[in-house]
Amino acid sequence: MKLFTNQFAPNPRRVRMFLAEKAIDDVELVEVSIKDGENHQPDYLAINPLGWLPSLQLDDGTIICESTAICRYIEETVPEPPLFGSTAVEKAIIDQWTRHMEFEILATVALAFRNLNKFWAGRIPQVPEFGTISKELVEKRLNWLDKHMEGRAYIATDSYSYADLTALAGIDFGRVAKIRLQDHHVNLKRWHESISSRPSAKA
Amino acid sequence: MKLFTNQFAPNPRRVRMFLAEKAIDDVELVEVSIKDGENHQPDYLAINPLGWLPSLQLDDGTIICESTAICRYIEETVPEPPLFGSTAVEKAIIDQWTRHMEFEILATVALAFRNLNKFWAGRIPQVPEFGTISKELVEKRLNWLDKHMEGRAYIATDSYSYADLTALAGIDFGRVAKIRLQDHHVNLKRWHESISSRPSAKA
Repeated sequence: MKLFTNQFAPNPRRVRMFLAEKAIDDVELVEVSIKDGENHQPDYLAINPLGWLPSLQLDDGTIICESTAICRYIEETVPEPPLFGSTAVEKAIIDQWTRHMEFEILATVALAFRNLNKFWAGRIPQVPEFGTISKELVEKRLNWLDKHMEGRAYIATDSYSYADLTALAGIDFGRVAKIRLQDHHVNLKRWHESISSRPSAKA
Repeated sequence: MKLFTNQFAPNPRRVRMFLAEKAIDDVELVEVSIKDGENHQPDYLAINPLGWLPSLQLDDGTIICESTAICRYIEETVPEPPLFGSTAVEKAIIDQWTRHMEFEILATVALAFRNLNKFWAGRIPQVPEFGTISKELVEKRLNWLDKHMEGRAYIATDSYSYADLTALAGIDFGRVAKIRLQDHHVNLKRWHESISSRPSAKA
């Protein structure tokens, strides 16, 4: 298998962390530079027509796009340890929290990043006012998430799951829009320190 | 089971369509008015702290938020007909296309809606310039999707799946931002007519 990835983007990191948690180390990593626009060159667009990263190419040539779809495929083929849950309710609750982390944190950080950071100037139309609204929304969501984490070791269930992995990718990505955990995020900082100490966090 | 729903919003519709496709008709529907702000009243916030719709309450009181998490729970408990796929690759491809439909269509329509439609004036800070950018992005994505649909009956695999259901909810929701299929969307219009004729589309 071949994973088209980028070392700075949060979604490829999710797949690399997932592979590390599953102790899978035989996937070939192909770095695609977003900075140099390699993801919008014909070679890569033939793999992923939207130019998004990551993409997974199976040995038979099948291509799977979207980080979570890729991780679900890996979960199906290497079920242990289960990171999407085991029972119907566990699976639903982990999916619920994964989606909260994707929409409320990761995707909203991305809106702030794209509309505020000079990296995107001249690449896309930027609307700083909307970037600021998005940034403030993430900060509000971090307060909500900190409250949720009171007395909890993990985000969705009582063990590490794909929701924790997604939250880590989203929160760490906040740096591109100067969004960081604050001192008053006591529960979230405790969780962040714990999750960041897992070897997979370096992937 | 009790489903907290709203008759105008696309995500509750996804769950209602899913229930219809599964021929499940014993779920109690509780309408929550977004127009009257019922989703931000304490009663509903106790169920769903973000005020999002839908939410599913199981008979033991467990609450599942997020439309796709709810549908996955239903798929686990009522597997036939499978709408999330059967094999590992099918499941991945359906998830990939579901996510494309969620992020590229549904969520982007929502950004256009929230920033352009007078319904939101005074309720949230609106940035019309960003709404217009979002609207144009959806229109671009519809062109891309039309091309993808050439020679295809369904979006993800060769049978109806959750990706089709999500695309229908997203495309129909376009009306709130005056985004509609155009005459040149020949493939997409053929698909839309076919999917809309399923009894579930009325749910």
